[in-house]
Amino acid sequence: MLVVGEWLNATNKAVGAAISGRDAGFVQSLASRQVEAGATMLDVNAGSGHGDGPGEMEWLVRTVQKAVDVPLCIDSTDPLVIERGLAAHRGRALVNSVSGEEGRVEGVLPLVKKYGADVVGLAVGPGGMPSSAADRLQVAQLLIEAAKEYEVPPQDVYIDPAVLPASVDGNAVGEVLRAIEMIKSSLGTKVILGLSNVSFGLPNRRLLNRTFLAMAVAVGLDAAILDPIDVPLMSVLKAAEALLGKDEFCLAYIRAYRQGQLG
Amino acid sequence: MLVVGEWLNATNKAVGAAISGRDAGFVQSLASRQVEAGATMLDVNAGSGHGDGPGEMEWLVRTVQKAVDVPLCIDSTDPLVIERGLAAHRGRALVNSVSGEEGRVEGVLPLVKKYGADVVGLAVGPGGMPSSAADRLQVAQLLIEAAKEYEVPPQDVYIDPAVLPASVDGNAVGEVLRAIEMIKSSLGTKVILGLSNVSFGLPNRRLLNRTFLAMAVAVGLDAAILDPIDVPLMSVLKAAEALLGKDEFCLAYIRAYRQGQLG
Repeated sequence: MLVVGEWLNATNKAVGAAISGRDAGFVQSLASRQVEAGATMLDVNAGSGHGDGPGEMEWLVRTVQKAVDVPLCIDSTDPLVIERGLAAHRGRALVNSVSGEEGRVEGVLPLVKKYGADVVGLAVGPGGMPSSAADRLQVAQLLIEAAKEYEVPPQDVYIDPAVLPASVDGNAVGEVLRAIEMIKSSLGTKVILGLSNVSFGLPNRRLLNRTFLAMAVAVGLDAAILDPIDVPLMSVLKAAEALLGKDEFCLAYIRAYRQGQLG
Repeated sequence: MLVVGEWLNATNKAVGAAISGRDAGFVQSLASRQVEAGATMLDVNAGSGHGDGPGEMEWLVRTVQKAVDVPLCIDSTDPLVIERGLAAHRGRALVNSVSGEEGRVEGVLPLVKKYGADVVGLAVGPGGMPSSAADRLQVAQLLIEAAKEYEVPPQDVYIDPAVLPASVDGNAVGEVLRAIEMIKSSLGTKVILGLSNVSFGLPNRRLLNRTFLAMAVAVGLDAAILDPIDVPLMSVLKAAEALLGKDEFCLAYIRAYRQGQLG
């Protein structure tokens, strides 16, 4: 399971201020804490929208990779920002994201190819947010085909089925779970989720997020953008991997238990 | 979701002693605590194996139903015990269980029909414990067919896919989850699980049990035999139902939050 730490996001006020103020200590500490907590990749979003976006992304990528030895998820839809991030990145990055909306693939996919990155394909099509599992599958197919045209193979694409809040639509989560199964079985590509949107507008969001994570892992989720510092959440992930035999002989689970990491 | 409280089981020493000593206060208090915690049915297992099995079951059923107003799950494979339990029971009981092993259906299914009960069909066939999802589906089909012969319709049967410990076989949980989906989609019957077996032999069993519950609910679980007094477990169940729109507008979830019941 690819665990993408979500904290280095400029839409969080403190992080946004640290980025625009070039506070390397703050950023590096948040990077290290996430990796120590189990993140195997870090999302980096420099999009304050006020400053020099490409320059901020370049600084963020370099600053984070001085502190931690994990690949980064370049979180932007702006080709200029993505390219500066990819150029500065060491190792194989993940670009988050390209969508099926008009005019998006042309800007992003050539960069994914040029820099040898993986890419998140967000299942939002020309018609906007998807509703059913079938809608998501359709946009996913379109994105996989577009990627192929730019010589980006399906195994380098993570489809994000675009999670809507459970509070908005009672069918939203069921459709996403069905979409994960359909995408995995019929497209053979990987699936990634941003967890936290699911609980928007409801109390005890962390309980909902970790319950949703267990559900999504059960139907084949490959990667999640989440808060690795949330101990109960990471405990559920370790439990889910132990249950599904992804953690051979449950050894990682037992070790986490012995180290007091399960909460 | 049918939530079957697991505590009134004579294999628990204290409970076994209370049953053989006819300690109504102890038994009724344990019944009430489970119902207050959210159980919508209680499992009753009088099988100490030492005393008068049928007499103990009759006493247990009457004693519990004096204290709480929920139906009971008559937990025995002995037709004599089952019949005395059903005869004493008020309302519609669930018989737990009949299996596909040689000679089992003939003793149990006529009682299920005679007393108008539901029945758990355990997916253990003539060849013993099932291994794959396909094995489970095959035994489930056999049980549904046998039930029909005794005029017990499929909608009165809950298939128990027979959960093996994750510590014993890394594929065990994945196969059970696949079996739930296959049974639900191809037989249209309900599925029930005993949760706790999954975590046998591993530390922090409650974490594994609740993670497994979320996974099983995601693929369509209808009923579970579990510990309703385990607050984090019941919280995951409420979160799962809110996420899947089984709890309209998440109202039960929000109410549970307001009442401080989510842990």
